[in-house]
Amino acid sequence: PKKSVAVLPGDGIGPEVVSAALDTVEKLKLPLEFRFGDIGWDCWREEGDPVPQRTWKLLEETDTCLLGAITSKPVRETEAELAPSLRGTGLQYVSPVLQLRQRLGLYANIRPVTDLDGGRFDFTVIRENTEGLYAGIDVHGLDEPLWNAVRHHPNAAASGPEDTSLTLRLQTRHGIDRLLRFGFAHAEAHGKRLLTVADKPMVLRNSGNLLRERLELIAQEHPDIETEILNVDAVALWMVRRPERFGVLVAENMFGDILSDLGAGVMGGLGLAPSGNIGDHGSYFEPVHGSAPGMVGKDRANPMAMLLTIAQMLGHLGLDVPGEELRNAVRTVARARKTVTYDLGGTSGTREVARAVAGRLEEG
Amino acid sequence: PKKSVAVLPGDGIGPEVVSAALDTVEKLKLPLEFRFGDIGWDCWREEGDPVPQRTWKLLEETDTCLLGAITSKPVRETEAELAPSLRGTGLQYVSPVLQLRQRLGLYANIRPVTDLDGGRFDFTVIRENTEGLYAGIDVHGLDEPLWNAVRHHPNAAASGPEDTSLTLRLQTRHGIDRLLRFGFAHAEAHGKRLLTVADKPMVLRNSGNLLRERLELIAQEHPDIETEILNVDAVALWMVRRPERFGVLVAENMFGDILSDLGAGVMGGLGLAPSGNIGDHGSYFEPVHGSAPGMVGKDRANPMAMLLTIAQMLGHLGLDVPGEELRNAVRTVARARKTVTYDLGGTSGTREVARAVAGRLEEG
Ligand SMILES: CC(C)[C@H](C(=O)O)[C@@H](O)C(=O)O
Ligand SMILES: CC(C)[C@H](C(=O)O)[C@@H](O)C(=O)O
Repeated sequence: PKKSVAVLPGDGIGPEVVSAALDTVEKLKLPLEFRFGDIGWDCWREEGDPVPQRTWKLLEETDTCLLGAITSKPVRETEAELAPSLRGTGLQYVSPVLQLRQRLGLYANIRPVTDLDGGRFDFTVIRENTEGLYAGIDVHGLDEPLWNAVRHHPNAAASGPEDTSLTLRLQTRHGIDRLLRFGFAHAEAHGKRLLTVADKPMVLRNSGNLLRERLELIAQEHPDIETEILNVDAVALWMVRRPERFGVLVAENMFGDILSDLGAGVMGGLGLAPSGNIGDHGSYFEPVHGSAPGMVGKDRANPMAMLLTIAQMLGHLGLDVPGEELRNAVRTVARARKTVTYDLGGTSGTREVARAVAGRLEEG
Repeated sequence: PKKSVAVLPGDGIGPEVVSAALDTVEKLKLPLEFRFGDIGWDCWREEGDPVPQRTWKLLEETDTCLLGAITSKPVRETEAELAPSLRGTGLQYVSPVLQLRQRLGLYANIRPVTDLDGGRFDFTVIRENTEGLYAGIDVHGLDEPLWNAVRHHPNAAASGPEDTSLTLRLQTRHGIDRLLRFGFAHAEAHGKRLLTVADKPMVLRNSGNLLRERLELIAQEHPDIETEILNVDAVALWMVRRPERFGVLVAENMFGDILSDLGAGVMGGLGLAPSGNIGDHGSYFEPVHGSAPGMVGKDRANPMAMLLTIAQMLGHLGLDVPGEELRNAVRTVARARKTVTYDLGGTSGTREVARAVAGRLEEG
């Protein structure tokens, strides 16, 4: 039976890279139905929600989702963007990617970091996607109970509750367990022998203990996989100096956000970085890059991140063979450095690169 | 009048690099008195506090402090290390560097990121050092008031208060203002035109607003300096791809911890990374590297980070000329790649490198 994919091109260069990439993968004659939907800034502007109701419905009806890109704007600009009739209604813009992750329970954000050129490193950042510093509790001006938790701190005392901000980093056994299990399963499926957890246990000692306890317990179910807990700062350094030492790298939401962008840097930029957001009952896939508003319509965006994202999605849908074919085609074109966009040192346009990848697919 | 420096060699390779570096700077005939003191693991073991009372007294009596290195150990190993007579007394190991920063109010952690080889980049990470995720409020098992703040979150609900951890990221007007003022002053003193704040304002919106408001206000006092707030993940990526774009980079404590280690990676490793911790009434200087227990006594540690740390300290003491001389001598030896330790691709020992730098100093 044909699987179905909700395609949400979104903002900025999203539509360009989606369209170029989908043209390319036509060559693979995939048993997939693509159903297009709306998300992003236009929806916010005209409907007051960047993820409209009909899009949630589409997500329910499809097997997975491919997302183009979403524009981030400073908070205070969001209300001004609303259609006049919607202003002053108290509507709050919430990032659509955060909405998808939270509401669909997509707790594992998988961001492969692969050396396309030399094959020197190949590891996966698995970022927790539903809790940590992203738990959504970030307040300025503290009420009594929260103020009591921090009033003894000299900086808080010097500022008073009305001039103090708190963000809560939430970590739960539930959240940690499912993430670690996912990480071990991923390591096993991909032949990795080392699972590294990036945290800061010597400073964040009590939350660090929870993590350590759960890791030790769950690791017993996977005696073939070595584990370690490293300081997140050391992980950042080693990603730059010795990326080949990592296999699977698991991290709290915000740490994972930082480390995966760093991973994109190590790989050679966001033009090559795919990602998949996975839960027990849903998933969506998106390039790590943003919507690059300044690049829209200029035929400059690198479609490779989107193509690699589709390859990752195909693997998730059980279409491993075409997924691997597509990844190899992208890799070959990237390595040759002949038909690549400016970010990889070339002069080719989005469509031209996508066509070069299609050409490789045809040659088999 | 001679200034005085408390020298705390500390753990691991700390004593080796301190001793080699101090021998080298003798050549500079500095108007400084060095007074040695104790800190670190031995103090914890035998006295139950890694920073004994006599060391606090020494810090009070001196103008600044030079620290070697401190060994970090997993929390649960700390009590087992105590002398038998001190066990079971409820003593808790608290990292000496965190004690120094908190108790002496050393709110700005200055970590220069300089391309010693090519001069391609040269910027400074200024890390907040007293609040943020390091505010010291990290709990596992929540009491009523904290549980009420998170019980609505599905992961918390699925785990219950006894299986939930919280870490509080504290940000205060007091803390932000003094950090930003310090950052602007540093930019002005070092001829930098851009001050970047690394944060995550689109996700941590309310604390992000406080930061933005204070930045806009304080920036008015420094019309010559451009400012921007960037997402911390983007900063990590750009530090790898385009480090030359940064001037002064200000960040919350944990973000700054990650970004400054990343900066060390970009520079070529921890063997070259100095730091200074500065407050309104005190300071201490230390290399960013750790105590490297496995390297002790092997004459392998790179003394350059310590030498660059001393150079930074000399600048802080108003001894800019010898500080610059020392920095240039290190730079020359590092660039030549002849007399360098293994981390820079060489085969020289700690003392040999330190002597090579001393040789450069003599040649003037
Ligand atoms: C846009 C933003 C909310 C998002 C995040 O922080 O998760 C992005 O940076 C990402 O990494 O997917
Ligand atoms: C040892 C540790 C507490 C310390 C920190 O996290 O600040 C270290 O990593 C540093 O960067 O100075």
